Amino acid sequence: MKATEVVERRRALLADFMREVWSNGDVMRCGAYIAPSYTIHHDPGDAWERQTVDLPGFMDRVRLSRAPFPDQQFDIRDMFAGEDSLAMTWLWHGTHSGDLPGFPATGQRLTMSGATIYYFDRANRITGHWQVTDRLGIYQQLQRAKPHPA
Amino acid sequence: MKATEVVERRRALLADFMREVWSNGDVMRCGAYIAPSYTIHHDPGDAWERQTVDLPGFMDRVRLSRAPFPDQQFDIRDMFAGEDSLAMTWLWHGTHSGDLPGFPATGQRLTMSGATIYYFDRANRITGHWQVTDRLGIYQQLQRAKPHPA
Repeated sequence: MKATEVVERRRALLADFMREVWSNGDVMRCGAYIAPSYTIHHDPGDAWERQTVDLPGFMDRVRLSRAPFPDQQFDIRDMFAGEDSLAMTWLWHGTHSGDLPGFPATGQRLTMSGATIYYFDRANRITGHWQVTDRLGIYQQLQRAKPHPA
Repeated sequence: MKATEVVERRRALLADFMREVWSNGDVMRCGAYIAPSYTIHHDPGDAWERQTVDLPGFMDRVRLSRAPFPDQQFDIRDMFAGEDSLAMTWLWHGTHSGDLPGFPATGQRLTMSGATIYYFDRANRITGHWQVTDRLGIYQQLQRAKPHPA
């Protein structure tokens, strides 16, 4: 396979992974995309940062991350080709339907932006990611949505 | 010029721009890298977000952004090729030597991570950026560094 074909294949896989797993919450599809060992290299604020998880561990991470925002959607903005990786910029939105630490569910619609580098092995499975998100933006939206004390 | 040569040329220009302008603070070098019109497409928390500036306006932005952190350094982690753009991941550090709103200078060393997409024109000048930074991480470090009330 030519280098450009590998990039195109990975772009298509990543778009499917984001839609099926992270947006639609179909955790049973994780095995179609991720490697047996997946490393969260950098992801400030993520409970799994610097951990390596197996498939069941990754599925737990998806379930627990999506629980407060069951209707969440990642809209892919753009992708960029690296050596063994793809960089992806995205916009996220979701309804705050489940409790977060310090922030009981408000029903508020939240938005966020971020950038993620996804790493691939030779079989085009995703082996991990490096991510920065605008978590201060989410924190500010949650603060504003908080019910005022009576 | 071949597409791969264009990418290599832009990588080298971007590395020089980051070192000379953003790390070393040599604002007189801005004109060597940026287009006559530069747009801050997306940059949550940046005072110039969604504005288009000319060269003197861009130089002001660099001066004012660097003032609280005169020794700041951007360490480029990786670059990724887009159509008319480069995506760049980076780690930043700087000493909090000047006052920020609500946070008088503490002399504390701060660190941050981020990802920036830089857009180029046909003359390989930078026409703008789209950026996400972990500004909550900085906010938390500033909160911790704040002198306790007597």
